[in-house]
Amino acid sequence: MTIWWDDLRIGTVLELGSRSVDAAEIIEFARRYDPQPFHLDESAAAQSSFGGLVASGVHTFGIFTALAAGAFFTRIANLGGTGITDMRWLVPVRPGDTLSARAEILSQTRPSASKPDRGVLVLRAELANQCDELVWHATVTSLVRRRPAAAGG
Amino acid sequence: MTIWWDDLRIGTVLELGSRSVDAAEIIEFARRYDPQPFHLDESAAAQSSFGGLVASGVHTFGIFTALAAGAFFTRIANLGGTGITDMRWLVPVRPGDTLSARAEILSQTRPSASKPDRGVLVLRAELANQCDELVWHATVTSLVRRRPAAAGG
Repeated sequence: MTIWWDDLRIGTVLELGSRSVDAAEIIEFARRYDPQPFHLDESAAAQSSFGGLVASGVHTFGIFTALAAGAFFTRIANLGGTGITDMRWLVPVRPGDTLSARAEILSQTRPSASKPDRGVLVLRAELANQCDELVWHATVTSLVRRRPAAAGG
Repeated sequence: MTIWWDDLRIGTVLELGSRSVDAAEIIEFARRYDPQPFHLDESAAAQSSFGGLVASGVHTFGIFTALAAGAFFTRIANLGGTGITDMRWLVPVRPGDTLSARAEILSQTRPSASKPDRGVLVLRAELANQCDELVWHATVTSLVRRRPAAAGG
């Protein structure tokens, strides 16, 4: 059952599930998308300011998105993300961490006159680790289709 | 030869190279990090508002980071990214696109009193496609180590 823009409510908090990450996944992701020594190699990472292997920030964002897509974005009539403001990496993500994703609906903007079939949705997105430390957050803007009956009204 | 925070200059533009993306890579990335129909399946994507398969926004960010890591972040004394402001996806990335990465140094903030060995670097990051359309941009904040001789001064 599709959830439309009109069905969403400001202040709703969505618990999006959790996922663990290991060294092999951190290294594999980094080889293709962020080949820096502290993401690629245990001994180079041990010499870095992180003191050990850490996940790429892009990878961390991908873990949030994987959880959010499975639990939320594929249930709503999502037309895709348009932007992010204020993305912050606060605590390094390390091998063995289990990350839990959460989102809160911050705002829903009225549809534009030119595209009345869609509305804007702004989410506060967060990942916490197994110690309940907030490791990452971002404010995400997406376009969501309006309920067909409502779109003309 | 390491490039330190002190060696960087506001206004410097860095051409970071280019990379092509095909349908297989778009689908493989989406399966693991953004499983939404318009990133996963050609025929579902054809029915979507995109009219065909498009890369995940996280994947697009990863393509920039791969190019920037290879050409720049591994040459400077990079201590890691801390945040992003104003990330925008402007034009969908489709199979067969070739994306060129570019960055401009926007600002260098003075080191903090508590951590005089590092400075803050802010970059405007951009990806353009083979038609010279700006497809993605972001403002990226990283910490960069100061030249050891300068850090005490």
